[in-house]
Amino acid sequence: MNPLTSPLLTDLYQLTMLQAYYAHAMQDAAVFEFFVRKLPPSRNFLMAAGLEQVLEFLENLSFSAEDLAWVERSGLFQPDFAEHLRQLRFTGDVDAVPEGTVFFPHEPILRVVAPLPQAQLVESRLVNLLHFETTVASKAARSVLVAPGKQLVDFGLRRAHGAEAGLLAARASYIAGFSGSATVLAQPLFGVPVFGTMAHSFVQAHDNETAAFAHFAQIFPKSTVFLIDTYDTEAAAAKVVKLAPQLRRAGIEIKGVRLDSGDLATLARNVRRILDEGGLRQATIFASGNLDEYRIHDLLAAGAPIDGFGVGTSLVTASDAPFLDAVYKLQEYAGKPRRKRSAGKATWPGRKQVYRRYRSDGLLDRDVVTLESDEPRGTALLQPVMRDGKRLHAPEGMAALRARAQRELAALPEPLKMLETCAEPYRVEIALPLRALAARLDEQSTAPLTV
Amino acid sequence: MNPLTSPLLTDLYQLTMLQAYYAHAMQDAAVFEFFVRKLPPSRNFLMAAGLEQVLEFLENLSFSAEDLAWVERSGLFQPDFAEHLRQLRFTGDVDAVPEGTVFFPHEPILRVVAPLPQAQLVESRLVNLLHFETTVASKAARSVLVAPGKQLVDFGLRRAHGAEAGLLAARASYIAGFSGSATVLAQPLFGVPVFGTMAHSFVQAHDNETAAFAHFAQIFPKSTVFLIDTYDTEAAAAKVVKLAPQLRRAGIEIKGVRLDSGDLATLARNVRRILDEGGLRQATIFASGNLDEYRIHDLLAAGAPIDGFGVGTSLVTASDAPFLDAVYKLQEYAGKPRRKRSAGKATWPGRKQVYRRYRSDGLLDRDVVTLESDEPRGTALLQPVMRDGKRLHAPEGMAALRARAQRELAALPEPLKMLETCAEPYRVEIALPLRALAARLDEQSTAPLTV
Repeated sequence: MNPLTSPLLTDLYQLTMLQAYYAHAMQDAAVFEFFVRKLPPSRNFLMAAGLEQVLEFLENLSFSAEDLAWVERSGLFQPDFAEHLRQLRFTGDVDAVPEGTVFFPHEPILRVVAPLPQAQLVESRLVNLLHFETTVASKAARSVLVAPGKQLVDFGLRRAHGAEAGLLAARASYIAGFSGSATVLAQPLFGVPVFGTMAHSFVQAHDNETAAFAHFAQIFPKSTVFLIDTYDTEAAAAKVVKLAPQLRRAGIEIKGVRLDSGDLATLARNVRRILDEGGLRQATIFASGNLDEYRIHDLLAAGAPIDGFGVGTSLVTASDAPFLDAVYKLQEYAGKPRRKRSAGKATWPGRKQVYRRYRSDGLLDRDVVTLESDEPRGTALLQPVMRDGKRLHAPEGMAALRARAQRELAALPEPLKMLETCAEPYRVEIALPLRALAARLDEQSTAPLTV
Repeated sequence: MNPLTSPLLTDLYQLTMLQAYYAHAMQDAAVFEFFVRKLPPSRNFLMAAGLEQVLEFLENLSFSAEDLAWVERSGLFQPDFAEHLRQLRFTGDVDAVPEGTVFFPHEPILRVVAPLPQAQLVESRLVNLLHFETTVASKAARSVLVAPGKQLVDFGLRRAHGAEAGLLAARASYIAGFSGSATVLAQPLFGVPVFGTMAHSFVQAHDNETAAFAHFAQIFPKSTVFLIDTYDTEAAAAKVVKLAPQLRRAGIEIKGVRLDSGDLATLARNVRRILDEGGLRQATIFASGNLDEYRIHDLLAAGAPIDGFGVGTSLVTASDAPFLDAVYKLQEYAGKPRRKRSAGKATWPGRKQVYRRYRSDGLLDRDVVTLESDEPRGTALLQPVMRDGKRLHAPEGMAALRARAQRELAALPEPLKMLETCAEPYRVEIALPLRALAARLDEQSTAPLTV
């Protein structure tokens, strides 16, 4: 079984639901929407990502012989269930907000319309993909906003939550505006540029630091960025300066140094001076080590002469907000709008569209969530991306996604760009027709249900 | 390329290091150790998990033709590098603390001894696996400690960070003492029991709630746990009572109900009363909805009559501590101990062993970290698990891992079992021979290094 593509990568209740739907011939069209109920603390906006992986998942959905054999021998299902699953493919429609788009709570960013069993089965993996990439893109965008013009590189693979998290984090942060990732496999899989210098163990494995630098330069004459904090950062910077003439005679220019520990603001200033006085004005300073958007902001605000940042754990785990209150909810079945009314978890029913309205200066003004059947109230965010189980367009290239993300961030009003929660959240209006529908459903439901 | 097994799932600098090691014939034995530098807030101990996945990764390490083709066309490496990689296998030794064992900062839980390029290359994925499963097992153990005798089920797949995170979280939490997971694929892959009831969408897709319950019972007569919070929890409990005689006539006993929102303590009490008064004393109450160990503790402390808990997002993202300060560091190369001295990140050099000492009542007293060459100072935690790239033992079964985790939690002194950080952390002594070695290395290093 393929851990990444098997449809058994789902919650058991999806399969039990399916069996019940088949048994009761409940195969009418269901409408599910994915949205975030509320922003986590310190987020003023979210950035959509993961759609490409969702579409790939839907397009290839099928149970392998091995999957079906497990279903049969599990003893959990009725004898004919595996046969239903064998024939199951995703034949539905998907509308979605393009990746790289900024969005807000209550706004569906993806809608599935499909026969109920299909739309139900895909919930777990669909949320799993869309939730994670959106979480990371939203986190990455914050570093992008505080470090304009600086190189930002994802260093997080080792503390990402598994392989797929490492890979998707590289993709999502690249979409949001990072320059690339240290994760090699993200290059062949997603076209993310890869970056890397040297490890402490490389320095330690040599009997002295200068020998390590010299060896490295000899092998990688075009990527001479030396890691200088293994023992004493400033002493190592002096060694780099001392080594430079020897390298220059061999035709090698030192590209830069990397700091990975200590008081980065002070060290960057002192190292800059050592490099400048040593004739290495062109050498850049790259910093890493427990960085996040807050520390990057503070370093730059303090005037630290740092040209690029490696951001690892905090990015790939979105450590200050490692999850979103993201859900995928049934909004209509068999032509009837549906509304969940659980305490604190009520949903807006029906098929919806999100309209965005801009100010005269081109910045975001407010969004309107309304029924799809309502009149247009601005620029529609949800767009058709899949019909009858087939994609309508080739995947957008990474360049297009990055360009969109950049435009979206540029269109944010200043208060929304702040790292801290802004006093006045962005305005998302629930339009009257939608409110009216919800009220009508609530009213109907107060009548005693027949048993 | 296989996203889960390709050796390109690594940081670029591992590959650049490798090329430099090959170029300089630096292939002597390197000793790397994996350990956690410090506990995150509110953790008093950690639980080791992920070793099985690490050993599988090491045993099968090899570059595929596709991986090598990428290396060649990437333009990042020298022409002979792919040939080195083609031949690369992991031929080293591994000693490790068994999964399910409790451990503390500064204690290596895994040691790799292998030719430097091999030991270096595996760092990123090895940390990626061991860090994540240990993070989740350590989080899960806290729920296990506060809910003795209760059923605990992992519900986290949808908000786990990707597919592998969902699967490994199911495994790690099961090792730590959970009863199982809702993630179906964790059953065939890891032997984790699967659990599941019904979804809100199932209830919503029916025109009335009782019809949904009746349909469900008909299809799953042996697993009649009804989700009762879609509209009004107590009203739904009354409907369940009213439905019971009809089901009983069909030979179906109601197993229980599930609450997923609202004030769970109050609802559980009221629902319990409704069920009891309705003759459903044997029906259990299962609760879910944004639960974590703190809420479970509070619910049980408040006497809420809840028999089992579904724990999702907080568990699989370890939301209050989504990462550990876990590292894999070079401690010896070519027979010489090595020490990184970076500010705040200094390591204890050399090959080490961890000894555990117990009190007379069998509970943990303190641990001693010392050089492997030192005399035994208690029960040795690190055990040989791989020699020359081959495992020494068949994988431990899940039952054995769970039994160990249970014994380990039972041996924790009471203060360490608390959810809050205990005032006096567990004692981990760094033995004199280890301190002496570190001091000697520091002393040598203050002599000016030859350039």
